[in-house]
Amino acid sequence: MRNLFFKITFDGSQFHGWQIQNDLRTVQGELKNAFKSLTGEDVVINGCSRTDAGVHAKEYCFNVKTETTIPCDSFPVALGSFLTPEILVVSCNEVSLEFNAQFDAVSKEYEYVFLNTEKLSPFMYKKVCHYKYKKLDEKLLNEACQCFLGEHDFSAFCASGATVVSKVRTIYSASVRRDGDMVIFKVRGNGFLYNMVRIMAGTLLYVAEGKIKKEEILKLIESGDRKNAGITAIPDGLYLNKVFYGSENYED
Amino acid sequence: MRNLFFKITFDGSQFHGWQIQNDLRTVQGELKNAFKSLTGEDVVINGCSRTDAGVHAKEYCFNVKTETTIPCDSFPVALGSFLTPEILVVSCNEVSLEFNAQFDAVSKEYEYVFLNTEKLSPFMYKKVCHYKYKKLDEKLLNEACQCFLGEHDFSAFCASGATVVSKVRTIYSASVRRDGDMVIFKVRGNGFLYNMVRIMAGTLLYVAEGKIKKEEILKLIESGDRKNAGITAIPDGLYLNKVFYGSENYED
Repeated sequence: MRNLFFKITFDGSQFHGWQIQNDLRTVQGELKNAFKSLTGEDVVINGCSRTDAGVHAKEYCFNVKTETTIPCDSFPVALGSFLTPEILVVSCNEVSLEFNAQFDAVSKEYEYVFLNTEKLSPFMYKKVCHYKYKKLDEKLLNEACQCFLGEHDFSAFCASGATVVSKVRTIYSASVRRDGDMVIFKVRGNGFLYNMVRIMAGTLLYVAEGKIKKEEILKLIESGDRKNAGITAIPDGLYLNKVFYGSENYED
Repeated sequence: MRNLFFKITFDGSQFHGWQIQNDLRTVQGELKNAFKSLTGEDVVINGCSRTDAGVHAKEYCFNVKTETTIPCDSFPVALGSFLTPEILVVSCNEVSLEFNAQFDAVSKEYEYVFLNTEKLSPFMYKKVCHYKYKKLDEKLLNEACQCFLGEHDFSAFCASGATVVSKVRTIYSASVRRDGDMVIFKVRGNGFLYNMVRIMAGTLLYVAEGKIKKEEILKLIESGDRKNAGITAIPDGLYLNKVFYGSENYED
């Protein structure tokens, strides 16, 4: 038995999210089928987190326990030959049998990308959140998002229906920068509640529009009331950027 | 009766080319339907050229003769409300009744984009021609493409089956540049034969691979034999960049 750790990139616009669903095209489902085609095995594709329909990943991680003897170096190309180009297998490494891509993740980094133009280029459709109403002030938003830093109960930034017990999470870094017509919110934390980054992004839009003052964000967090935060920004702009592990799989 | 001149952008990966076909999604078909929904009229969408399935346009032009009184300034948003985001209506201007988007075009500029990386990012799929076999030498290719300049019979760069009488075209400018991982071939001419830019791009790949020496391109053109030129590069990398008209609609 080997435990293989994979990094992949995927364009979420082509999938109904990560998790396997009957009759719907999902990333986990495609990977499970590709693994079956390549190795003949029915494996469990153990992902680092769920992602919603339309959400992208520059770097998503999963692990698989397998009996196959295919060398790690050959796995990206071999597995990729049973996948469409919307999923790219970036790397494969053997890890200890105890390693779990979900539970051993110590932090994750997301980016939320706004395209701040009057018109949405067809080439950016489903890849960004198009925001045309005003020029976004990236300095103001960068100041505002600093309020997310530290350990908080993020109940106000969690979609209703989430069944998780503790809504306390720690945000390690948060920033907003402009890159040409793109305004990019980057956030890293030890974990994220359901829709949390998208609600943070929507709240930053409320700050941009003057509906919430940046000084009020801490109160908003403390209120624990979802109704006080901004809208849930569309999935199109959300990218899982990087997953951080302990020493074993830590890179960069 | 008004004659309206439109500029649009479209992501060709979502369409079976420009020209209306029964039961297939085409750019001309979508525009005709949108026009009907907006104005009630059955109009002729008179495009500047055909484009193949998968070919993109940063700027495509067409004209429409119509009785509608909708102001030009309102047309892009109004027409766009009946289109999906894969087609963006950029501008609308009234022109003389004699103007024809196809016949009055004096030149066109195309770009062919290679992504020169080992792996194809899922976010670039269907937007570029992925070339992974070696690092492309943009200086060599830039020198090679200068051989296309001037007036030539481009029979060697025309797909078989084309019914056009004269295959003489004039190329005004041609260049290859690198932009990060992208290598971009840009070419402007008074007209292009069927698949001509894609065969030029495929011929540049032959030069990159040493299958054709750059000094041999002129002989290749003079041979008039399609078999001597390179492959027809995939449509994914081809962009209609700009259409040039006489003074009436000339911009930039």
